[in-house]
Amino acid sequence: MSLHQLQTDYSALQQLGLKLDLTRGKPSPQQLDLSVELLGLPGESDFLAEDKTDIRNYGGLQGLVEARRLFTTMVGAPHQQIIVGNNASLALMHDVLVFALLKGTCDSSEPWSKQSEIAFLCPVPGYDRHFKICEDYGIRMISVPLLEDGPDMNEVEALVASDPSIKGIWCIPKYSNPTGTVYSDSVVERLAAMTTAANDFRIFWDNAYAVHHLTEEHVSIANVLERCAAHGNPNRAFVFASTSKITLAGAGLAVFAGSKANVQWLLERMTSRTIGPDKVNQLRHVRFLKTEEGIADLMEKQRLLLAPKFEAVLNIFEAQLSGVPGVTWTRPKGGYFICLEVPPGCAKRVVTLARDAGVVLTPAGATHPYGNDPKDQTIRIAPSFPKLAEVQEAAKAMALCVQLAVAEAGH
Amino acid sequence: MSLHQLQTDYSALQQLGLKLDLTRGKPSPQQLDLSVELLGLPGESDFLAEDKTDIRNYGGLQGLVEARRLFTTMVGAPHQQIIVGNNASLALMHDVLVFALLKGTCDSSEPWSKQSEIAFLCPVPGYDRHFKICEDYGIRMISVPLLEDGPDMNEVEALVASDPSIKGIWCIPKYSNPTGTVYSDSVVERLAAMTTAANDFRIFWDNAYAVHHLTEEHVSIANVLERCAAHGNPNRAFVFASTSKITLAGAGLAVFAGSKANVQWLLERMTSRTIGPDKVNQLRHVRFLKTEEGIADLMEKQRLLLAPKFEAVLNIFEAQLSGVPGVTWTRPKGGYFICLEVPPGCAKRVVTLARDAGVVLTPAGATHPYGNDPKDQTIRIAPSFPKLAEVQEAAKAMALCVQLAVAEAGH
Repeated sequence: MSLHQLQTDYSALQQLGLKLDLTRGKPSPQQLDLSVELLGLPGESDFLAEDKTDIRNYGGLQGLVEARRLFTTMVGAPHQQIIVGNNASLALMHDVLVFALLKGTCDSSEPWSKQSEIAFLCPVPGYDRHFKICEDYGIRMISVPLLEDGPDMNEVEALVASDPSIKGIWCIPKYSNPTGTVYSDSVVERLAAMTTAANDFRIFWDNAYAVHHLTEEHVSIANVLERCAAHGNPNRAFVFASTSKITLAGAGLAVFAGSKANVQWLLERMTSRTIGPDKVNQLRHVRFLKTEEGIADLMEKQRLLLAPKFEAVLNIFEAQLSGVPGVTWTRPKGGYFICLEVPPGCAKRVVTLARDAGVVLTPAGATHPYGNDPKDQTIRIAPSFPKLAEVQEAAKAMALCVQLAVAEAGH
Repeated sequence: MSLHQLQTDYSALQQLGLKLDLTRGKPSPQQLDLSVELLGLPGESDFLAEDKTDIRNYGGLQGLVEARRLFTTMVGAPHQQIIVGNNASLALMHDVLVFALLKGTCDSSEPWSKQSEIAFLCPVPGYDRHFKICEDYGIRMISVPLLEDGPDMNEVEALVASDPSIKGIWCIPKYSNPTGTVYSDSVVERLAAMTTAANDFRIFWDNAYAVHHLTEEHVSIANVLERCAAHGNPNRAFVFASTSKITLAGAGLAVFAGSKANVQWLLERMTSRTIGPDKVNQLRHVRFLKTEEGIADLMEKQRLLLAPKFEAVLNIFEAQLSGVPGVTWTRPKGGYFICLEVPPGCAKRVVTLARDAGVVLTPAGATHPYGNDPKDQTIRIAPSFPKLAEVQEAAKAMALCVQLAVAEAGH
C-alpha cells in the first residue's frame, strides 16, 4: 500500500474515535468471574486450618501448610521449602531484593548495599516492573539478549564469571513477559551450573505463568531448584509464583520457594516485618482451588477465554502485516503477551500513532532497562482485558499504525 | 509471708501443672468471633467499589476511598492523606523505615543508610517489635524514659536538638504498649514543636490502640499531624494504625496517614513494590464495619470481653502484692497490657519462676532495646488471650512468683 493510501486509512481510523487499552496484562472481568466464589469463602464457621490453627489470629509466618501444598508442583519444591504470603509476588521479589541489599543473602559476607556497585543481568525484552525495582535502588542493569530458548547463555556465562558485582539475573522462564519464551532444559542447566564470580549470586526465577497455557500443549520446564542443587549451587535460585492471574488479580496469594537455607533466611528476614500473612485468604484459596488439579481445571477455563483474543490478534497481524519487511511477532503458547518487533526506530512512532487513534499501548521501551530500547523496535501487546471485538479493532488499528510507521520511515 | 512459706506455696503451685501463656497481645477466640461475619463477605456479587473499581483486579495503590474514610477520625487526616494497605501495620512501619534507609524521606538529602550512623529514640518500656526493626537494620537505639504523660520531653528535646544522627522516635501515644500511657497534649505539642538537628526527623506514631478502650472513658489525644503542621513541621509525623485488634488479628487492614508530601512520597516508594493492596479485604471491612460508629460499637463489645480479664489481674495483684515493697503495676484505661514493675534485679527471676510453674510470660527485657532492661524490673502481662479463669490462675501464680523473687532477693 502506498504511503498516501496508508495516511488516508489512518485519518479514517482516527475518525472512529476508538478508546481501547492494551497496556497491561490485566485479566478481564469474565476471567475474574471464574473465581467469584472466593468472595464468599471461607464462610463464617470455617476458620480452623488442618493443624487446628485459628486462621483469624496472629502468626504462621510461613503460611498454612495446606496452602503451601497447592503449589508444590508449580514451584518444584516440597511444602517445607515454600512460603505463602499476601497478594503480589512483585512485593515478595521486592522484599527479597531489599533484604539482600540491607542484610545480604545467607551466602553474603556483607549487605549488597555496602558494596560500591552491584548489577543484575536483564534478559531483554523483559518485564518493566523487574527493571523498575533495580532502577529504584540504583542496581546497574546489564541487558542480555533473550534468544528463542532463553537468555543468551554464552553472554551470561561470560559476564557472571568475570564480574563479581553481578549479583543476580531476572528470569521469567516460562511463557516469558513479553515474548512468550520458554527456557530450554539446556539453558536451565547452564544457569544452574555456571561459575559465578559472586558467591552470593541469585537467579530471580519469576515463574509468573507456570500454569498459564494458551494452547492444549502444556509446556513444562526444568526444575531450577533441583538443577541448582545438582550442580552444587543449592541456594542459587529464588523461585516466585502467584495466583494473581489464576484467581483474583488484586487479592491472590504470592509464593516463594527455595533451598532450605534460603527459606530459613527469608523467614528470619520477614520476622522483623510481620507476625504473619493473611491466613484467611490462604484458607479461602484452599477451599476454592482444593488441589493442583483444581488449579489446572480453572486455568483451562481461563484459556478458553484468553486464547480467542490471542488468536484474533495473530490472525489480523497475519493478514495485514505478513508482507511488511522487518515486522515480526511472537506466537506464544502461554502467558499474557504478544511481542511485536518492528523495524529499528519505528516502535515509538507506532505507539504514538496508535495513541492518537485511541489505542493505548505499553510505552515503547518499557520492555528494556531504564525504559530504553536501544533499537526502538519492541512493542508489548496485552490482549487479555478488552472484549474480543475490541481486541480485534485494536489489532487492526495497530496493524495499520505499523504499516504507516514503516512506510513513513521508508523501509 | 516468710521465705520458707513462699517456697512451700511455690512447690504446691508447681504441682498444679499449669499451662498458661500470657506472652503476646493476642485477641481471644471470643473476640475474633465478633468479626466472624467478615469470613463470608463481601459475597459473590459484591465486587464494585463506590467509584466502580472492580476490586478483584489490579490497581488502586492508595486503597479504596471508602476504606480510607473509615479511618479519618482514628488517624486524624482526610482520606486523601490516608493509605490503606494489607494486614499488619508492623509491615507498613517496617517498609517506611526501609524506604527511608534505602532512599531517604521526602526531606532527606541522601538515603539514611548512606549516613555513617543513624539513631532512633526509644521511650521505655516500649514495644519489642519496634526495637527489633531497629536492631535488625543496625539503627542505634537510645532509650528515653516514658513518664506518666509520655516520653521525658526534656531529655527528648535535648537529644534531638544536638544530634543530627537521631532520625526518629517510636511513639505509641495512646494506651501504650506495655504501660497504658496516654500522651498529654503538652507532650504532643512539644514533639511537634521541638527543634531537631536532623531536618528529616520523623515521629513513628504507632496509634495501635486508638479505639481500644478498657473503661467507659474514651480517652482522646491531640492530633499529631495537625500539631506538627501548626508548628511548621508538616512532614514530621508518620501515623500508623490497623484493624488487627479491631476485626481479625491475622487478616485486617493497615493504615498510614501523613502530610500530603509524605503520602505522595510513600505512594511513589510503594510503586516499585506492588501494583496495589488486597482491595477485596478492604471492601469486606467496609461492608462489615460500615462507619466509624460501626467501629466504636464493635470496640465496645471487645471491651466487655477484655475488661473483666484486666480487672481480674488487677484485683489479684491488689490482694496479693499491695504490701510488697518496690512492686507497682499499671491500671490501663485501654490497650492490651498491664506493666508490672518489680524491685531492681527481680524481673528475670519472676519470669523464670513463672515459667517453671507453667506460666509463660514475655521474656524480661523485651520491653527495652536489645532486650536489655538495665534495671531488670519490667514485666509485660498480656491477659487478652486466655479464658478468664485461666487469667485468674495465671495472675495468682504470678503474684506468688513476684513475692518469692522479692523475698529471695532480700528486699
